[in-house]
Amino acid sequence: MFAEAEADPSLSKEEFKPLEARLRVALLNAQYQRLQKADKTLLIVIAGIDGAGKGATVNLLNEWMDPRHIKTLAYGPREGAALERPPFWRYWHDLPPKGSTGIVFGSWYTPLLQEATRKKPDQNSIEAQAAAIRRFEAMLAAEGVQIVKLWFHLSAKAQKARAERLLASPETSWQVSPVDLKVYKKYDRIRNAGQVVLNHTDSGHAPWVVIPSADGDMRAARTAEAVLAAMRQRGVPRIPPAFVAHASPMRVVDRLGELDYDAKTDKDDYESELGLLQGRLARAARSKKFQDRSLVLVFEGQDAAGKGGAIRRVTHALDARQFDITPISAPTSEELARPYLWRFWRHVPRHGRIAIFDRSWYGRVLVERVEKLTAPVNWRRAYAEINDFEGQLAASGALVLKFWLAVTPDVQLERFKEREESPFKNFKITAEDWRNRDKWKDYAAATNEMLTRTDVAHAPWHLVSANDKRYARLQVLRHIVEAMENQL
Amino acid sequence: MFAEAEADPSLSKEEFKPLEARLRVALLNAQYQRLQKADKTLLIVIAGIDGAGKGATVNLLNEWMDPRHIKTLAYGPREGAALERPPFWRYWHDLPPKGSTGIVFGSWYTPLLQEATRKKPDQNSIEAQAAAIRRFEAMLAAEGVQIVKLWFHLSAKAQKARAERLLASPETSWQVSPVDLKVYKKYDRIRNAGQVVLNHTDSGHAPWVVIPSADGDMRAARTAEAVLAAMRQRGVPRIPPAFVAHASPMRVVDRLGELDYDAKTDKDDYESELGLLQGRLARAARSKKFQDRSLVLVFEGQDAAGKGGAIRRVTHALDARQFDITPISAPTSEELARPYLWRFWRHVPRHGRIAIFDRSWYGRVLVERVEKLTAPVNWRRAYAEINDFEGQLAASGALVLKFWLAVTPDVQLERFKEREESPFKNFKITAEDWRNRDKWKDYAAATNEMLTRTDVAHAPWHLVSANDKRYARLQVLRHIVEAMENQL
Repeated sequence: MFAEAEADPSLSKEEFKPLEARLRVALLNAQYQRLQKADKTLLIVIAGIDGAGKGATVNLLNEWMDPRHIKTLAYGPREGAALERPPFWRYWHDLPPKGSTGIVFGSWYTPLLQEATRKKPDQNSIEAQAAAIRRFEAMLAAEGVQIVKLWFHLSAKAQKARAERLLASPETSWQVSPVDLKVYKKYDRIRNAGQVVLNHTDSGHAPWVVIPSADGDMRAARTAEAVLAAMRQRGVPRIPPAFVAHASPMRVVDRLGELDYDAKTDKDDYESELGLLQGRLARAARSKKFQDRSLVLVFEGQDAAGKGGAIRRVTHALDARQFDITPISAPTSEELARPYLWRFWRHVPRHGRIAIFDRSWYGRVLVERVEKLTAPVNWRRAYAEINDFEGQLAASGALVLKFWLAVTPDVQLERFKEREESPFKNFKITAEDWRNRDKWKDYAAATNEMLTRTDVAHAPWHLVSANDKRYARLQVLRHIVEAMENQL
Repeated sequence: MFAEAEADPSLSKEEFKPLEARLRVALLNAQYQRLQKADKTLLIVIAGIDGAGKGATVNLLNEWMDPRHIKTLAYGPREGAALERPPFWRYWHDLPPKGSTGIVFGSWYTPLLQEATRKKPDQNSIEAQAAAIRRFEAMLAAEGVQIVKLWFHLSAKAQKARAERLLASPETSWQVSPVDLKVYKKYDRIRNAGQVVLNHTDSGHAPWVVIPSADGDMRAARTAEAVLAAMRQRGVPRIPPAFVAHASPMRVVDRLGELDYDAKTDKDDYESELGLLQGRLARAARSKKFQDRSLVLVFEGQDAAGKGGAIRRVTHALDARQFDITPISAPTSEELARPYLWRFWRHVPRHGRIAIFDRSWYGRVLVERVEKLTAPVNWRRAYAEINDFEGQLAASGALVLKFWLAVTPDVQLERFKEREESPFKNFKITAEDWRNRDKWKDYAAATNEMLTRTDVAHAPWHLVSANDKRYARLQVLRHIVEAMENQL
């Protein structure tokens, strides 16, 4: 894998000059004619041996391509807001839009490489991290992000010689970091770690390319060629199933049909119970322990099932400084230019905070499925992607609770009519609501499959009978209060 | 000002019921028919006596209006990333788009109120903070943000009674915070502080409305009425000049004309000098002191003046993890939905980081002025707004350096032709460049006025003779290096 690079090949000036001219034109043309028209993002991941000239290459790419459409994303250790979110959050956060190029420096490979470079690497950690990366990259690739990963490599001898050459002159010595100087001492360990990482994460849709880096011209030419090949790739790559955490065959249970829709709470019980539950929620949300956790509440349900009312009963108990409601409607152009989950990653809460979603990422397997807004291949893989997303939230300290507020068709009809007649509710009812109602069975099937495939321990679904609004609101509050009290 | 509110007026149930029904319909109608069509943002600022029911009112507004178009923005003390930016940064950052409503809780008034509530308030600090707020609100108002500020008020007696009533029941006691309990002890001080703040910051375009808050129904009705009045306001309010830090009459000097365009550096001097300057820049940017500062570099100049080349000579000395180039082109839809400066506030760097703008907010007084893309009233007030923006950056620890790379028409023509002939530069030259060239004199006049009005000590312009690229690059580097070495 590294054999060619460790032979430290080089290009003569005579070989490089015409190559350079040709590559620069080709890169610019590809950037303009392919990438922007192809409606995809190019992500170039930079990794490799320290002191192999990665920084210089990032500058070079900015020089050879049109820098206005390149975003250099450079990451150091996680800190501040990023520490309170899943590790991938900051990469999602900064993901450049379609038509542009991101060069990622200090990427999601850094922790994996650090682990693999240790004297006694933890194999389980390596496997788990590599699997998470494969899922991440497969999802990006499937959603129009073309990924190419460059591993800059050179022999131990060349690495040492390069550092010494740069150090010798006061004009270039600043290019050598203390890390570079240490590299040749543990060259073998870093090299072997690179091999492990490349073996675990190489794929057709997100390939690793080893760049011989001892000679600057060779490094430049090979980098340009690798980037060019990625830009010239057409369409969305085929993701082999092994790279996607795919949905296992499961028996879809008719949970909607099995629900007891007669459950009721009378007014007096409701008033006293509501106050008590809100009091408990208020205390839990203000507790010291919650300051190291966060809460993600997902509200789904048929139209007019009472999501808004339930949400307001929850927020009534909360300090307004603490929560954030994100109502999901049509995506903005910045959202449309990124993979589907990006718009939800934008709203992942910090510790001590509560994010409430009035409709959510489940739109992918509900409305987008039923209304055929996305291809079946997309919503089919979404179950696993959503489980993965919520798993990351849970692992970073979020309590993820999901509510499906379920009503029967007759109760929905009653509420629709009531809304149409109410002067301050008629904005809530549109022609679309009536159209959705006609597809009741399709939505029910999609809902049952969703409940089956995404009801996971770290992010449970609570199916709530909502024909009686009071009963539903208390159920929602009770689930939240109990989950918080148990976990905090 | 507070007399009516301190009489603690109330509404009977009979008065409130029909009023509520009417107000809810009116609010929804206004939200749909006025606000969204009027292409503006509504900002509702929440302040007042603690324990006056501000939190409940925020919930109520979410209940009465369509919450999908309301963003509750709640701020606590500044922390993390916000601490490394100007105080207003987080309010800019979260500004909701046009067509929506933001309710601001813990707003830019918090520090001012805290100061005014102290036993011995610092009058200078109060004046300075109030002036900064006036400039901020005037700018927002002028750019399509309708602001209404609500001061929730009640008598000391009523405040105490309300806290005791809530405390008495376990179901509501959580609504009372320790702060609320202390309020009645220093009621007079808080009340007087409110008076000072309201007097300093009340204006036609961002009015304060005092909401009598002892009675929940009265509070609800008055809040709804105030919000309604704001939503019904048509068009952009007239900002009295006193509220805008307006441009003083200045003699516009022909600095472009006075520049020595023959300045040159020969190749040998260039190579050695470049390396030395890059070395000094590298050391300065990596120094410990820079970790508490940031650097904002603005590059402007005629087309083909060599901005890109100069930027690359700067970034060559920097660690890619440290800098971020923002090339300014057409704004996105999310940017167009906010005030002009929002898209630049998005890129204000953290400490230890360098933000490079390839073109910048000066587009407002250059291309937008010359090409008549904005009304004269907008670019005329932009000088003061820009000075204010950069002043805030400087005050928060940023070193702001601005470069105008100046070429003569004949040199530009040469470079245009050369670009057209170069296979890897011809993408850089468009019909627009030729059109801009025809307006050389208009651009020169706009540039000279910009240099005169915005060359301030905290953010100096460096007018760089750029007919010789080598000379220009060294000048840019030298200015940056010297500024950093002086300031760090």
